[in-house]
Amino acid sequence: MSVTYAQGFRAAGVQAGISAVESKRDLAMVVNDGPLQAAAGVFTSNRFCAAPVQWSRGVLDDGKAHAIVLNSGGANACTGPEGYEQSASTAEAAATALGCRREDVAVCSTGLIGELLPLDRIIAGVGIANGALDAGERAGLDAAEAIMTTDTTPKTFTAQGSGYRLGGMVKGSGMIAPQLATMLCVLTTDAVVSAGALQAALVSGAEMSFNRIDVDGCMSTNDTVILLASGASGVEPDPEEFGRLVAQGCASLARQIIGDAEGSSHDVRIAVSGAGSEEAALACARAVASSNLLKCAIYGNDPNWGRVVSSLGTVPVAVAAFEADEVCVDINGVRVCDGGRPGRDRSEVDMTPREVHVDIDLHAGDQRAEVWTDDLTVDYVHINADYES
Amino acid sequence: MSVTYAQGFRAAGVQAGISAVESKRDLAMVVNDGPLQAAAGVFTSNRFCAAPVQWSRGVLDDGKAHAIVLNSGGANACTGPEGYEQSASTAEAAATALGCRREDVAVCSTGLIGELLPLDRIIAGVGIANGALDAGERAGLDAAEAIMTTDTTPKTFTAQGSGYRLGGMVKGSGMIAPQLATMLCVLTTDAVVSAGALQAALVSGAEMSFNRIDVDGCMSTNDTVILLASGASGVEPDPEEFGRLVAQGCASLARQIIGDAEGSSHDVRIAVSGAGSEEAALACARAVASSNLLKCAIYGNDPNWGRVVSSLGTVPVAVAAFEADEVCVDINGVRVCDGGRPGRDRSEVDMTPREVHVDIDLHAGDQRAEVWTDDLTVDYVHINADYES
Repeated sequence: MSVTYAQGFRAAGVQAGISAVESKRDLAMVVNDGPLQAAAGVFTSNRFCAAPVQWSRGVLDDGKAHAIVLNSGGANACTGPEGYEQSASTAEAAATALGCRREDVAVCSTGLIGELLPLDRIIAGVGIANGALDAGERAGLDAAEAIMTTDTTPKTFTAQGSGYRLGGMVKGSGMIAPQLATMLCVLTTDAVVSAGALQAALVSGAEMSFNRIDVDGCMSTNDTVILLASGASGVEPDPEEFGRLVAQGCASLARQIIGDAEGSSHDVRIAVSGAGSEEAALACARAVASSNLLKCAIYGNDPNWGRVVSSLGTVPVAVAAFEADEVCVDINGVRVCDGGRPGRDRSEVDMTPREVHVDIDLHAGDQRAEVWTDDLTVDYVHINADYES
Repeated sequence: MSVTYAQGFRAAGVQAGISAVESKRDLAMVVNDGPLQAAAGVFTSNRFCAAPVQWSRGVLDDGKAHAIVLNSGGANACTGPEGYEQSASTAEAAATALGCRREDVAVCSTGLIGELLPLDRIIAGVGIANGALDAGERAGLDAAEAIMTTDTTPKTFTAQGSGYRLGGMVKGSGMIAPQLATMLCVLTTDAVVSAGALQAALVSGAEMSFNRIDVDGCMSTNDTVILLASGASGVEPDPEEFGRLVAQGCASLARQIIGDAEGSSHDVRIAVSGAGSEEAALACARAVASSNLLKCAIYGNDPNWGRVVSSLGTVPVAVAAFEADEVCVDINGVRVCDGGRPGRDRSEVDMTPREVHVDIDLHAGDQRAEVWTDDLTVDYVHINADYES
């Protein structure tokens, strides 16, 4: 159902001839018919942020958006003032079709960095998409398909609150590829929520989800997560429940990114407990999740705890206090490292499941954090080496 | 010639039956016959540093070492007090054979983390190596071979100063593999140099070489670089010349590690100029050198500058000030990114040479720094996935 699950939204996903992949849907529109048009967003912190990111930041500044135009087949990043003009023109085409201001149309792009978009096709595509806008299930799925690049499957989310609904879609084969697997996410709700409350729920939800997955440590120039509220249900939600559902949506979509990460054969949860603070636990989890060596070992179904602790050992004491000889590591439930020394034999670990759980206890407090990552495979290298730039 | 090029040193490299690889030399000794026995060392900063690192730090504390015992086939890391006792016993066996204190014998180990060494074989191997000690060229090469793991070739260095000599050997297929490609390095000189001057020259030389290569960002538990001075030439060197030669030795050996990095098909130099400070340039170079995506692209002979700038964009402003729209990137001499925008066509770049040069100009100052790395290949993944733990 994707973004059209919530009332008050129409969507479309069409072929505009932007993507190099033949007969692939490559342009999506999501329109908020209101009555409310509240909006919130979080964006990449990359200093080379793309033109559509610069444009959409401005759009969301006043907490209002009427529509979003999203394209695959080109990131419109590192394209200078001309690239910014392309984003503005895209917004203008949609605004003309919808009868709104261009300053109320956000734009998201994903694809190759460093090339301008085929603007004619984008503009024509906006026209086609506008004609195809629909509030039904199929339209939501079409939109989710149109934003895919190296994704192998569309990723969507729906949730029912007390009298209101949430929907969502995301693309990304990991947060990995600035060039071809940028993460774009649109969440929609028909609850009556102010822009400020939307932003608070989104920032909190994104922090615990999209900011805690790491496929290859590479930050995109185009990452964008937008949450739109139509208020069409007429229901003002309980803030706590609403925040929980937004967080669930972010978590579900982030988890789907990991499940579809480029070339991956294992989804890996790194959980660090026994830390002095959540920040310390998170720093340790991130250090382990970014180890190419560990990720290669997991690809080889090797429960190689030496590569867990050697990554852990790179975290400065000032960031996370712990004693090396008190650290325990469980892999898929088997304590392979006990107090910094060998524990049970690694042959006892069953590495065949798709999910691999690495549980680290620092024995230095009672705080914890989790990060999801993937294994590093031959297919990942092929996908990212053979991609035709 | 390796470590025996300088006068006053004997070495050996023998088969002790430690390595799983049949008939591989796996134990080396380097003995300083003096008259001087000054020594300096730099070690991994990993918090899970191995037993031999803990032992050897203590040995070098007083600036004196008589000998070094090095083994491949086992890292003796994360092995608790018993592992430390193994390093002490190894030193003791060599001390007994040489007639010195065990506190003057450093120990280096490389191989699998989390398993004790076969101590009987180590002790027996020390006896065999002691009998084989020789000051000739062959003995130096044997030692360089005995410390290899996934290395495909021994790596050595010699240099002639004004009346004195330097020699050296290193192992490491990158700084990459905490488990099987730990970096161990021994440098020798017959110059008359105090321990303090040795340490200063070594720290400075290592900083500009071993600390500026990055194969996969993974820090070992066992990294060790030791510099021994015998004084056998009777020559007190000019400090500036001596420092320059030590730096040359470190740079040559570090460059050889990159050239032999696991699975690599390209050696990649990331040079950042136009920075406000050397630290800023270095932070930018490290960020680019650690990008898996860029390294995959280079493996695919793709001069993908989008992956250069997107990595650069992750460096915080506080660390390196620059404007995104002023950054230029040359790949193998072709300016593919000019002022944050597309420059010359990437088809003009010749990616066939083994060496790839990525030159980044931040246009924000006059400081520069270089980091060497490798491409990320299918073979790298195979080597690190299929390694039998």
